[in-house]
Amino acid sequence: MKLISLVAVAAISTISFGATLLEEAKNAGLKPIPQNKTELKKLIDDPKNPMTDVKIELGKKLYFDPRLSKSSLISCNTCHNLATGGVDGVSAAIGHKWAANPHHLNSPTVYNSVLNAVQFWDGRSPHLEDQAQGPMQAEPEMAAPKDLVVSRITSIPAYVEEFKKAYGKDVKIDFEKIATTIGVYERTLITPSRFDDYMNGKDGALTKVEKEGLKTFIDKGCATCHDGIAIGGTMQPFQIANKYKFASTGDFKGDANGMVKAPTLRNIEETAPYFHNGQFWSLQDAIKEMGSVQLGIVISDKEAASIETFLKSLTGTKPQVIYPMLPASTSTTPKPDAL
Amino acid sequence: MKLISLVAVAAISTISFGATLLEEAKNAGLKPIPQNKTELKKLIDDPKNPMTDVKIELGKKLYFDPRLSKSSLISCNTCHNLATGGVDGVSAAIGHKWAANPHHLNSPTVYNSVLNAVQFWDGRSPHLEDQAQGPMQAEPEMAAPKDLVVSRITSIPAYVEEFKKAYGKDVKIDFEKIATTIGVYERTLITPSRFDDYMNGKDGALTKVEKEGLKTFIDKGCATCHDGIAIGGTMQPFQIANKYKFASTGDFKGDANGMVKAPTLRNIEETAPYFHNGQFWSLQDAIKEMGSVQLGIVISDKEAASIETFLKSLTGTKPQVIYPMLPASTSTTPKPDAL
Repeated sequence: MKLISLVAVAAISTISFGATLLEEAKNAGLKPIPQNKTELKKLIDDPKNPMTDVKIELGKKLYFDPRLSKSSLISCNTCHNLATGGVDGVSAAIGHKWAANPHHLNSPTVYNSVLNAVQFWDGRSPHLEDQAQGPMQAEPEMAAPKDLVVSRITSIPAYVEEFKKAYGKDVKIDFEKIATTIGVYERTLITPSRFDDYMNGKDGALTKVEKEGLKTFIDKGCATCHDGIAIGGTMQPFQIANKYKFASTGDFKGDANGMVKAPTLRNIEETAPYFHNGQFWSLQDAIKEMGSVQLGIVISDKEAASIETFLKSLTGTKPQVIYPMLPASTSTTPKPDAL
Repeated sequence: MKLISLVAVAAISTISFGATLLEEAKNAGLKPIPQNKTELKKLIDDPKNPMTDVKIELGKKLYFDPRLSKSSLISCNTCHNLATGGVDGVSAAIGHKWAANPHHLNSPTVYNSVLNAVQFWDGRSPHLEDQAQGPMQAEPEMAAPKDLVVSRITSIPAYVEEFKKAYGKDVKIDFEKIATTIGVYERTLITPSRFDDYMNGKDGALTKVEKEGLKTFIDKGCATCHDGIAIGGTMQPFQIANKYKFASTGDFKGDANGMVKAPTLRNIEETAPYFHNGQFWSLQDAIKEMGSVQLGIVISDKEAASIETFLKSLTGTKPQVIYPMLPASTSTTPKPDAL
């Protein structure tokens, strides 16, 4: 009798531990990528410019096309490389003529970026269609004036045809339309992970140690800033408890109110180096630093390792990318300005 | 009766014109990519290191991996971009820290490069496995010492596993093995075209004007250097009739005997700018210049246009490329040296 009730208690305890953690995660504001396709589409689509296969395919071509840069050597994919977690893997972005980002800012991942509330580290851009206009023009990035980008694309009949197919024969192929179409493609770059399966009710999707890591993540307060479906992606006060160890690298101070976008933690194991200035290469060091800088607590080595174990469950399945074959330039295509 | 014989003569004449041109093309040394898969494999494979799906897939990952460069920003695909005809579209290759090729040499296409008799403009390399070692190490290209390349790759367990799968568990992952594996992938980048269909017996594969262009191509003597399956790819004497108009751009003089590799003409419409120093953007201008420089003849605008029409039939079908998702770096992976 005693044995039986012990077993019963143990069973209940196991079940309720699972249920409780899931509830805790939900209460902490953590949310999964929806499994339901209609729900997912609603989440990532822009009703003002609904995605279609034609727009997505055209957007992919533009995303990979280095002719959108002054030199014709740098594409969106150069700094946000879909092969390497959607980033370039260097501390500061490097662009036209090898210029480093003047504020020593690190390229954030393009994967799941549609889930961010705002874009750029200082959150100055409301969505991907707006964001995409920045790097194309910025001198230390792609360095291409708007009219150069438009001239390059409109000089290539195959591109003009694709824009017509995507938006109708009267489409005006301007800089904004080009950026918007890149945004449509970027919206599709969603990477569901085992964490999402867990949050969607599949208790066995996370291992015991990953669940422990999730609990530590919540208990330590990480989900205060890293929550929602993006597990981040919102503006947060920065350095509220302590000064950031490498604050001297670069002159970035956040937005006018000192707020900085908390990056998504999805695929974080693939996107070193960390923080806005890319000065931390070890994920565990980054976790401990955030404990100090943002939460004003000491996160032990053991706790950091546990949180890291959880974070790796956020590494998601990438959409398959058929590498685009781009239409050839023509005699009227403005030449590369590379040397 | 008279009418009937006229029709008969016309029919015979059409047939024999087709047959004659095909014979002429064959006599000029022009050859198709074999349709037969066994024959094709024999042509592109290296019996000393036979291709397998595992080697090809690993080679593709390495081809696209920017971590093979010192900065971790430049991959083989940067200068030999499979999206843009296998080239970078700039006159001189640009590499590490935006250094231009010191001899102002243009990046040749990787597509069909296995069909070249030799590699590099001066033909100093006998095959792709040897060629691939050059750009990785060259200071103005990927600038990575051999041991850095090896350290990067061997620090990533997923890569080590793939090398074991490809070559057996005792594989020695050295610089040569990495380059060799890239070579295996490059061997697969063959692009059959309508010209090949024609040469393989499908008379209707070329239009009438394309056939006229082929005839002009042969009659003018272009096939003297641009022959074989590569329609080029062999060492040829250079500037034998006249000085090259832009000979002053760069200091390239060919090999020790003044010989230069005649580039493949396959996909030539996609690989501007032309010549070893990339100084011609117009294919018709390039054709006329070669008439002057190499053949000592004047090729008229009309003839150049006709030849160009034929050359466009050499634009081939590219193999579908699934963009690789690369394994993440680890704590022991040597950091990018980009700034």
